[in-house]
Amino acid sequence: MENTAQDLRIDGARLWDSLMEMARIGATPAGGCNRQALTDEDKQGRDLFLRWCRDIGCEIRIDRMGNMFARRAGIDSAVPPVITGSHLDTQPTGGKFDGVYGVLAGLEVLRTLDERGIKTRAPLEVVVWTNEEGARFSPAMIGSGVWAGEFSLDYGHSRTDKSGATIGAELERIGYLGDEPAEPRPITAAFETHIEQGPILEKQDQLIGVVTGVQGIRWYDVTFWGTPCHAGPTPMEDRRDPVQALAWLCERLYSEVKAYSGDARMTCGDLRAEPGSRNTVPEKVVLALDLRHPQPEGLEHLHRTLYRLAEQVEEATGAAIDVREEWHSPPVVFDETCIEAVNSAVKQLGYSHRRMVSGAGHDSVYVSRVAPVSMIFVPCAGGLSHNEAESAEPEHLEAGCNVLLHAMLARAGVA
Amino acid sequence: MENTAQDLRIDGARLWDSLMEMARIGATPAGGCNRQALTDEDKQGRDLFLRWCRDIGCEIRIDRMGNMFARRAGIDSAVPPVITGSHLDTQPTGGKFDGVYGVLAGLEVLRTLDERGIKTRAPLEVVVWTNEEGARFSPAMIGSGVWAGEFSLDYGHSRTDKSGATIGAELERIGYLGDEPAEPRPITAAFETHIEQGPILEKQDQLIGVVTGVQGIRWYDVTFWGTPCHAGPTPMEDRRDPVQALAWLCERLYSEVKAYSGDARMTCGDLRAEPGSRNTVPEKVVLALDLRHPQPEGLEHLHRTLYRLAEQVEEATGAAIDVREEWHSPPVVFDETCIEAVNSAVKQLGYSHRRMVSGAGHDSVYVSRVAPVSMIFVPCAGGLSHNEAESAEPEHLEAGCNVLLHAMLARAGVA
Repeated sequence: MENTAQDLRIDGARLWDSLMEMARIGATPAGGCNRQALTDEDKQGRDLFLRWCRDIGCEIRIDRMGNMFARRAGIDSAVPPVITGSHLDTQPTGGKFDGVYGVLAGLEVLRTLDERGIKTRAPLEVVVWTNEEGARFSPAMIGSGVWAGEFSLDYGHSRTDKSGATIGAELERIGYLGDEPAEPRPITAAFETHIEQGPILEKQDQLIGVVTGVQGIRWYDVTFWGTPCHAGPTPMEDRRDPVQALAWLCERLYSEVKAYSGDARMTCGDLRAEPGSRNTVPEKVVLALDLRHPQPEGLEHLHRTLYRLAEQVEEATGAAIDVREEWHSPPVVFDETCIEAVNSAVKQLGYSHRRMVSGAGHDSVYVSRVAPVSMIFVPCAGGLSHNEAESAEPEHLEAGCNVLLHAMLARAGVA
Repeated sequence: MENTAQDLRIDGARLWDSLMEMARIGATPAGGCNRQALTDEDKQGRDLFLRWCRDIGCEIRIDRMGNMFARRAGIDSAVPPVITGSHLDTQPTGGKFDGVYGVLAGLEVLRTLDERGIKTRAPLEVVVWTNEEGARFSPAMIGSGVWAGEFSLDYGHSRTDKSGATIGAELERIGYLGDEPAEPRPITAAFETHIEQGPILEKQDQLIGVVTGVQGIRWYDVTFWGTPCHAGPTPMEDRRDPVQALAWLCERLYSEVKAYSGDARMTCGDLRAEPGSRNTVPEKVVLALDLRHPQPEGLEHLHRTLYRLAEQVEEATGAAIDVREEWHSPPVVFDETCIEAVNSAVKQLGYSHRRMVSGAGHDSVYVSRVAPVSMIFVPCAGGLSHNEAESAEPEHLEAGCNVLLHAMLARAGVA
């Protein structure tokens, strides 16, 4: 049995076909996916996933946040499960792989064991977490966050999209408001496969990223306040112009972030002026800012740099500024036994690899608070993600799935 | 009769009451007005104006752009009229005086002559131009623009608001699609009173601005193009970030515009990122840019500065830029005889004053292409305009109206 298990490989073509079938739901003309959380498209994606899981005899449970758990029984039902999974929701102009790969790689592991008749000691579960992207409902990773105790269920249900619809009502509308409590239970180990969403593996020609942790993230709503006035008469020196203040701050913050360390990240993902009339100086400009760093002290440095520059804005430009921190996710260090399970599988399979820190947040961040966790990365073309052109090679996806299979088997035990 | 006319003054309290009555139509909670062009509120404002004009026996004509002309007959119907007027439409968060003052000051002149029984040789007309603001329908000053031959009637009728409604259909809906041709006819002289919309008169403690012309204006749509990528993984040096490009350009353009001349103006009135998700580098940022200068060579310098910096954006930041000029209104120099009529009236009335160039565009810009024109400015509090807090002193408004009265009498001739 040990030998059979060691030679075991997943079916890369079947994995690819599943990915392409899922990608048809919410497909965009530019080749990406728009399958935002709890939309009709998300429901269709969930329905398809459940059909596939039932085809191989999984037991399905859905919790009160709409998180879905598909379970393949183990020999010993007293042993906590080994779980894997990710999310099926996408950005508005998202790709075919972000999240979906982690879910369908887990499904492919179960399919492979099923057709080979291989039994594990611990049960195996594939999880779909609700609203990982945070694109339709803020904050991101709310399904895993409620499950892991970061947020209350009431908080989770009451999050609204731009039209005012809540997560609770939308879960009910699409039929995915489950009965199970959204709370942690004993877990032997958790793994998540994902495309890297960055260019490092591709640039260094490495097949597998053995992920040891996740960058810390801080989110800010920055509002620049000006005084509306007509574009013509008011001399420049008498103005309080929020766009001037925005340009002043961003020019300096980009420069300081880049100079600080190659690991530092600054993203201004959203930006709008109000009232937004061409011949009127805006009353305000609102900026959604994202700062990241893999070390706590690095993230703290970026945070302090932002506040230091913000304090200078009014004197430099005349416009006022208000910085409100919306979210702080400290750097995460994954579980050493799980990292080692991935590392051993990679070596056993003979794949090129490197240890790395994830730049993106993932459901694994919250899961890691209540269970031993690590992640497996595969390259994506040009490092592009959150982009309709997101792309990954079938053989890379297959390799990552083989690593997942063997890491899960190692932690679950082959019967 | 000459003496009577020289001692003539308008009724400042009545002018103020008219302004406050008009301000109730579309009044906003913050004390401003939202009476955008061709809305139900605009119709109510027009109805009120017409009722007041009919009360003093004016003959009303409405042209095919909805421009309204209220005429008080002169002794000699062969002499072309002396006209005055402005607009009744406002910005979405506009004030009580921008435009409205110019219309109601004209009405107050006619009322004063009517109650004193003073006849003029030339007829006098008060005009309301359609959609001066350009807030609901772009471009601005379309009513006077069509009338003066800058735009065709078809172009004017086919302009749409954000919901797709056209000027032609909205004129018909509110009952102001008139029969008269929207085209110029002989005009003896035209005057427009207006709040300054800038801080210069207030700062220098001058009562009247004798306006000699209008700044040139160039409008641009500037698009910064980036490559969407996830906020975490991609190193800063591998990004094409349109917000970095925006900050780079604006920081330098503000600085060069301010250094060039105290008469130069730069306004970034609207700004938005797409797709606008916090944890994704945007695909693009769109900026509505407005550059102004009173001299043609100064405006040309600003234009060239914009293009020179734009050419450097991609090398400096990695993101691409596209600059499209949307509108070019060259600087305007008003008619010397009209300027002198205003200047004489101011001196006769003993008001403090200065010559100045308007920073804002006005209907007088287009009218000046087909008739002798000048303008009269009065101070407004803090120079604020296009703002619900827009405010002007009753005695300043009264003084400007007295100047208008005597300038119009000088050009029309007292019978």
